[in-house]
Parts: sequence; structure tokens; C-alpha cells
Amino acid sequence: MSPSLDFFYDAGSCSLAVRIVLEELGIPYSAHRVSARAADDEASRSAWRARNPKGRVPALSPVVGRTAGEPLLLTEVPAIMTYLSRLRPTLGLVPTDPAREARTIEWTNWLSSHVHAVAFGGLWRPSRFTDDTLAQVGIASRGRANVLDAFAAIEALWGDGRRWAVPDTYTVADVFLLVFYRWGTMIDAAMSNYPAWTAATHRLLERPAVATAFHKDGLQLPQL
Amino acid sequence: MSPSLDFFYDAGSCSLAVRIVLEELGIPYSAHRVSARAADDEASRSAWRARNPKGRVPALSPVVGRTAGEPLLLTEVPAIMTYLSRLRPTLGLVPTDPAREARTIEWTNWLSSHVHAVAFGGLWRPSRFTDDTLAQVGIASRGRANVLDAFAAIEALWGDGRRWAVPDTYTVADVFLLVFYRWGTMIDAAMSNYPAWTAATHRLLERPAVATAFHKDGLQLPQL
Repeated sequence: MSPSLDFFYDAGSCSLAVRIVLEELGIPYSAHRVSARAADDEASRSAWRARNPKGRVPALSPVVGRTAGEPLLLTEVPAIMTYLSRLRPTLGLVPTDPAREARTIEWTNWLSSHVHAVAFGGLWRPSRFTDDTLAQVGIASRGRANVLDAFAAIEALWGDGRRWAVPDTYTVADVFLLVFYRWGTMIDAAMSNYPAWTAATHRLLERPAVATAFHKDGLQLPQL
Repeated sequence: MSPSLDFFYDAGSCSLAVRIVLEELGIPYSAHRVSARAADDEASRSAWRARNPKGRVPALSPVVGRTAGEPLLLTEVPAIMTYLSRLRPTLGLVPTDPAREARTIEWTNWLSSHVHAVAFGGLWRPSRFTDDTLAQVGIASRGRANVLDAFAAIEALWGDGRRWAVPDTYTVADVFLLVFYRWGTMIDAAMSNYPAWTAATHRLLERPAVATAFHKDGLQLPQL
């Protein structure tokens, strides 16, 4: 089952994780760049909002088997990654074993809610959290501190010598983590403070699907 | 497969969703109240943090089939709800059909990341977003606005006459939504502005598992 999929992304955003999953599956898809963050392109932002009320990327369509009344687009990184993984269940990118599946969702939900929305959201999008422009510096500062605390927590989990985020299997949690590692390099976090996570990232960057996804997004591979 | 589960919760927190799922399954579990938010009980907070570095509830243990190195506790509402659902797959609380499964995760991830962490987090826990105490009023105000925007988006999705959040089937998305409906009544949001969501909530409150979960949490059912 390989439907022709439309993938809506922005270069370097969290949509990179979905792009990597698409490349891991090796299924055909059409990529459409949406500059959801381009403040100077209000027309294209409005057009995108008419199609996706959340106004964010990534999004995927169509979802085969949707029921009446459901929107065409599927949103939310963990939902899209899970949907794609089910197209090639033998790859196990979201494991079907209940314990490993739960650990995978535990990672992706925490990365989405705490690391992305709260920590990087505060750092990069403080205006989402207040209408008081004077307060935004303090929100960004706390956002950065939240990012570094989260990075320390990630490193601590690798302290047991695990090879992957869900210890014995490559999953979408590893893919999603790569987005935040890359963002760490962009904010000049001292990534050498996280040697185990850095080693895991090295292994990820050797995967052809990862290199292809970076290339198609127009991104350089992080220099570790 | 019905392992004896330990469920860590706080009355009225988002752990209520997990409690409802436990009651829907009808499996045995032991509930342990953790007042993670009780500022006046530093000792119990420290003890909980030693066990769960995130310091939050809900959490579940043990997870059967975990691999070496993994923590005993499972955290994150969507992960716990999914794990529990797989214990009774015929109930379909997280559907195994890929399209419905993806829609369920889309809901729970958005509720967890945007509605809980960003919107209610800003409103009720502004100190998570800044160290500047003077900025907290503005963060709480924007948090409340974000909550009301999210509630309007939820109501809009019910505009197609669907019976459940994932249109044709009762899922953990409906269960999780109930937490936020209840929180809406607590912040004196005008819930009558959301008639379709209110009707769906009425149907939920008629379920014996929901009433039992409220009772065991020591909560009154919302008066609609």
C-alpha cells in the first residue's frame, strides 16, 4: 500500500523528522514547502491557514481510510510518523510490541510537548506566550534554560549505554531527537556536553535516508 | 494479560484521563496519589522526583516487556493510554486501523502539547515560562486566551455532526478531552459557547467508567 502522499514542510523545522521517515520508507511523495514562519509573506500564510487551521507544518495528505467529516490533512509530528510507520510495519519505526510502542510515544510526546512547544517555543517564539513585548526577553531566556535542562535529561538516559532512544531498536524517537540535536547546534549549545547523545547522532547521520532528507530539505549535515 | 499495575496520579490533574482508561478496561490497579503540585510538601515532591525525574503525574508501572536500561515508570498521558489500550485491543480505545490510530494520536499530541503544556500551562503555571515574576500576569492572560482559542477549534471540529473526536469510534481522545472540558468549567469559561462539545461531554459522563473514575479521584462530575 503506497498511496501518493503530499508532504507539507518547512526547511529545518520539525518537519525534517517526517521527511526522514518518508526517506526511510522509500515510498513516493511530493514535497511542498510552506513558509509558515515567513512574516513577510502574509498571503501564503493565509492560504496555508485556510487549508490547515493550525497554520503549522508538517502536514500530510491524503490519509487513506479517513472517515466522513475528518479533515484531509494529518497534522502533529508523532501522528504523521506513526501513520507512515504503519505503511511499512516490518521496519518497526513505531514498534508494534506494546512496551516498545509505549516508550516510543513517551519520547515523541515529550519531545513535542516539552522540548519543542515549551522549551524551544519559549526560546524562539516568546510572542506565543505573552502579549507583553517587554516580557519576551525573559521568556526566551527561560526557554533556553529549559532546552539545556532537557538536553541534560536526554544525555542522562543514554547513560546506560543504550544504542537507540528505545534501547534495542531504531524508532521514530531517534529521528525526532535529531531535529533537536540540530537545533542545539543552531543555538550554540555546547553539544560536546552530551557525548552519548552525540555518538548516537553520529550513527544516525550515517544512515542514507537521513543524509537524503537533509539534502532534500536543503540543509547541511551538522558538523559533530 | 492483566499485570498488577501501579498508577500514580493527582486528583483532578491530567492523570484523570488515565484513570478513566483504567476503569474502561476493568483491570486491577493500585492508585497512589502524588501531590506533585503541593508547594508546601517539599519532602514528598523530592521523593517523587527521585523516582520520576520529570516530577509530574501520571505515571504507570511496571511496563511488561521493558528492555534493559529502561526506567520502570512509564510517563506521558498519550503513551500510558496507548499502552493500556493494547492490553484490551478489542475495545479499540487506540484503534489499530492506521487512519483512526493516526487521528487519535493527532488529538492526544495536540491536547498534550498545545492545550495542556502551552495554553493551560501558561494560565496556571506561568512560572514555568519566565523567571520574571512581573511577567507572569501577562503569560497567564495569554494562556487563558490560548485556552479559549483551542476550545473554539475543538467546537469547530464537532461542526460536522460527529459523535466522537475520531468521528465513528470512542477513543482515548474523547477521554483526554474530558479533562480539558472539566478544566474549562474550573476557569469559568463559558462552556455553553461549545454546544457540540458539551453534548459529546454529556454522552461521556453517562459512561459508568467515567463516573467511577471521577468518584475514585474524589471529584464531582461537572454540572452541564
